[in-house]
Amino acid sequence: MHTLYLIAITAEAMSGALVGMRRGMDRFGLCLVGAVTALGGGTVRDVLLGHYPLSWISHSNYVFITIGAALLAAAIAPWLRYLQKLFLAIDALGLIAFTIIGCNVGLELGVSAPVIVLAGAITGVCGGMLRDLLCNEIPLVLRQDLYASIALAAGALYLLLQHCGVTPDTASLIVLASGFSIRMLAIRLRWQFKVFSAADTDTGTGGAH
Amino acid sequence: MHTLYLIAITAEAMSGALVGMRRGMDRFGLCLVGAVTALGGGTVRDVLLGHYPLSWISHSNYVFITIGAALLAAAIAPWLRYLQKLFLAIDALGLIAFTIIGCNVGLELGVSAPVIVLAGAITGVCGGMLRDLLCNEIPLVLRQDLYASIALAAGALYLLLQHCGVTPDTASLIVLASGFSIRMLAIRLRWQFKVFSAADTDTGTGGAH
Amino acid sequence: MHTLYLIAITAEAMSGALVGMRRGMDRFGLCLVGAVTALGGGTVRDVLLGHYPLSWISHSNYVFITIGAALLAAAIAPWLRYLQKLFLAIDALGLIAFTIIGCNVGLELGVSAPVIVLAGAITGVCGGMLRDLLCNEIPLVLRQDLYASIALAAGALYLLLQHCGVTPDTASLIVLASGFSIRMLAIRLRWQFKVFSAADTDTGTGGAH
Repeated sequence: MHTLYLIAITAEAMSGALVGMRRGMDRFGLCLVGAVTALGGGTVRDVLLGHYPLSWISHSNYVFITIGAALLAAAIAPWLRYLQKLFLAIDALGLIAFTIIGCNVGLELGVSAPVIVLAGAITGVCGGMLRDLLCNEIPLVLRQDLYASIALAAGALYLLLQHCGVTPDTASLIVLASGFSIRMLAIRLRWQFKVFSAADTDTGTGGAH
Repeated sequence: MHTLYLIAITAEAMSGALVGMRRGMDRFGLCLVGAVTALGGGTVRDVLLGHYPLSWISHSNYVFITIGAALLAAAIAPWLRYLQKLFLAIDALGLIAFTIIGCNVGLELGVSAPVIVLAGAITGVCGGMLRDLLCNEIPLVLRQDLYASIALAAGALYLLLQHCGVTPDTASLIVLASGFSIRMLAIRLRWQFKVFSAADTDTGTGGAH
Repeated sequence: MHTLYLIAITAEAMSGALVGMRRGMDRFGLCLVGAVTALGGGTVRDVLLGHYPLSWISHSNYVFITIGAALLAAAIAPWLRYLQKLFLAIDALGLIAFTIIGCNVGLELGVSAPVIVLAGAITGVCGGMLRDLLCNEIPLVLRQDLYASIALAAGALYLLLQHCGVTPDTASLIVLASGFSIRMLAIRLRWQFKVFSAADTDTGTGGAH
């Protein structure tokens, strides 16, 4: 799980840096957007739950990992086009991994079941929302059903499995496998979704694009 | 007071969902913007005051109420045009109710009088600010005198009345009645305000509209 | 140091109010943006570190100082053009002063060295970031190397000096003098930087300007 967490924050930091590049940011901006994208979900969750200290404050090496990943993404940006499928796959794994980690924090603190699922979804989704706010865009997650819904469903499934007596490790594996498959399917479906709603989305976001 | 709180979060969630619809969001986005609009003010106040656990974390049914209200608003949106006056009235009641609730939290924590009034105004106003940030607009409250000022005045009056020996319940009723009346008057005044400053406001917000 | 803090929040509140004016806000909006610009950096730092109560909650006069400064800035805005150099100098002093104050909070809480430097930089930089988010702009700091980098370098230097046995007071003076000089140099360099990247920056921010 810890390895998966490291892969997830690296992938998220790279995705943040790539969005920042498209918006004309310099290297410092890329690093900051990368770090916020990778660590922002967990930070929002911990601030809302009053769960101190934050993970990147007790483990400051996480900050350096995300900065390194952002700089790497900036350096290899021209090649990342060819790796886009790999990238989407890692991002999908990261979403589910973040959700499971968030649920575990909720379980640890003994909050109610709906709040545990919310804590998971917030961890998975808020990093990308903060990235979009910093880049002055309407958060993508607000306009794309199948990202946040998958995080919510994955969190609910994870809780349900544990409730039925499945061990945390097995539950994590099942949720990762099923969540990942559905997310990859959703990316295909999204293509179609995009075609039908392109006109609405364009006018909806106005001059911000 | 509790009934009023439930009415207020329902009204705010519906107002958030309606703004989200105008910006081309899907159902998930509407629910999230609705929940953030309704619960965001209290969340910002509690995070700033270090007042844990947050209300929607100990009472997760609040989250479901706001999601239900957002979905309802999306379903009956075409009819809401005819109910706009009722809607504005509920929103005005909600603003004052949130402000009183925020002041009560400040009183409970024993902070100084100006901070109590601020805690009230933050509760009343921040939900709408977060809604506008998520929708990529300059928060309306920053461009409209008579929303936040009324929250501040209502909070100050509430404190003053209690200081003069009025019981909390009577003080709440007086503040609700007077704050509501002034807010409804302010809505009339706003029409005129809008006419005079329309040109400034349009250029001020640039391409974001 | 305390005098410097008061000068810094006054300068930051005035800068926030001036940006708000350019975006067509009314007096209430100016006061709010001014207060958020001045007190936002410390607030973000304290929320992330779980360092309660926030400074402006235990010392509510800070809120009144920033509101007064914002109103003053609005009143003397036409004359501020002639004082722009003085203003930039005060802002540069404020950046370094905030950074040192943030590092002191980190030292007090006993967090690790990288987190202390981050706490300093967050204090110096986040006020301006929140100002830009409220005004619906991509935070300036994400597009300008030499603001946040100077905060990070100043924090690192401050820690290094103390590690080498320099007293906090002497270290503060050395960091203030060197940080201020480099920032003023950076403002000159920025002119050149702007010329070279003007085209990129314009397209990068799209319709938001």
